Amino acid sequence: MRFTAETPSNGIVERDFHLGEIPGVLWSPAKAAPGAPLVLMGHGGGLHKKTPAMAARARETVATWGFHVVAIDAPGHGERPRTDEDDQARDDMRRAMTAGDKERFKDVSIRYISGITKRAVPEWQATIDALQGWPAIGAGAPVGYGGGVSMGTAIGIPLTAADPRIRAAIFGGGFFVYDELVEAARRITVPVQFLLPWDDEHVDRQSSLDLFDAFASAEKTLHASPGDHRRIRWAGVDDGFLARHLS
Amino acid sequence: MRFTAETPSNGIVERDFHLGEIPGVLWSPAKAAPGAPLVLMGHGGGLHKKTPAMAARARETVATWGFHVVAIDAPGHGERPRTDEDDQARDDMRRAMTAGDKERFKDVSIRYISGITKRAVPEWQATIDALQGWPAIGAGAPVGYGGGVSMGTAIGIPLTAADPRIRAAIFGGGFFVYDELVEAARRITVPVQFLLPWDDEHVDRQSSLDLFDAFASAEKTLHASPGDHRRIRWAGVDDGFLARHLS
Repeated sequence: MRFTAETPSNGIVERDFHLGEIPGVLWSPAKAAPGAPLVLMGHGGGLHKKTPAMAARARETVATWGFHVVAIDAPGHGERPRTDEDDQARDDMRRAMTAGDKERFKDVSIRYISGITKRAVPEWQATIDALQGWPAIGAGAPVGYGGGVSMGTAIGIPLTAADPRIRAAIFGGGFFVYDELVEAARRITVPVQFLLPWDDEHVDRQSSLDLFDAFASAEKTLHASPGDHRRIRWAGVDDGFLARHLS
Repeated sequence: MRFTAETPSNGIVERDFHLGEIPGVLWSPAKAAPGAPLVLMGHGGGLHKKTPAMAARARETVATWGFHVVAIDAPGHGERPRTDEDDQARDDMRRAMTAGDKERFKDVSIRYISGITKRAVPEWQATIDALQGWPAIGAGAPVGYGGGVSMGTAIGIPLTAADPRIRAAIFGGGFFVYDELVEAARRITVPVQFLLPWDDEHVDRQSSLDLFDAFASAEKTLHASPGDHRRIRWAGVDDGFLARHLS
């Protein structure tokens, strides 16, 4: 892991890094407590590790709870090159959308997202390894998945199922649910907070409810509000969820 | 309205009252602020106005937010006589339950609860009239429905639809949903917080989701947790919901 820039402001230090080919950003309290938790945030499809809404949420998490927050560019996103398959899938999605072919749009989206997910899970695990190997964070730091709706959750679910270091996870709807995701959800037993946009224009509501139903967690909460995943205004969601489970 | 007892303890005054034939209880801060909001709490089927879980929630609401909280015995509940029809319906429900006849249990429950609801709505409206006419509360006090799952919500939905003084409402699942309730929900536009037990042993989950879907409110949030309506452990529900909308 190579740190390439360090920008302090308002008590928060933003560090850019590269882990092999993966560009990432780590937000930390200027004076982090030893053993402070590490929260992973996954951006949505077509976005990147410093997408303003997510970066704002990351900074708020650092400022409010004193946690470290890390984001990485997903494969083919942000600073990373896209493969020919990525470009093809994005073209196909655009064409299906323009043609109003909802079934095709869904099929292509699932193929694209599930491919990214398979590459992203080991990258996240390597990121946890690297950050827990960095003395300022350390091996004992509790890890949580801090969500993101859409692709951030499509990646977070198999990651949380695969990695026992993740002790609690915030997930959210806004993507097409496919069988492998439901199977991964069935293997998750840590506390889950699931944010559901009630009126997603593309995603069938029932598929998201089935996904929530699949989590094996004794503590899981569903929070739904009107709106789709781009325009939702969350109200009344428990901001202390990660703090309760990681502190 | 006749106050029949007044019991102060720990900064909270509990006042028993009778409004005509309706027995009620009002919990207030020992030193209530002028214009403090009034929260209505409806007990579940077979229970009464001082059911311990609800009384504890009422006292917490008074202590935390400085609100008044009122509960009344629903028709045929608590100190109130049951009609022959009430007794018949309760017998029928018990028999259907013992026989494992789920459809009959549902039908009898709906008949029983919808009958109680029709009597309860004007009683609640008379209770609001009386308390807003009492100088210590006053006509300007904002009113909220503080919920209760089960029968408390079956009453609260038509009440909130009928009474424009109610500015926000907490509802919850745990009862059989019938058409009149869905129609009343469609007329509700105030902010709604809806608590859904995810695994109610009797009530079809989809019917509760359809009920949530029906609220016309721009701000509505669904919060679901595992468990049925008797055994649910709520986690991460926004305790400040009423305070945000009534204060």
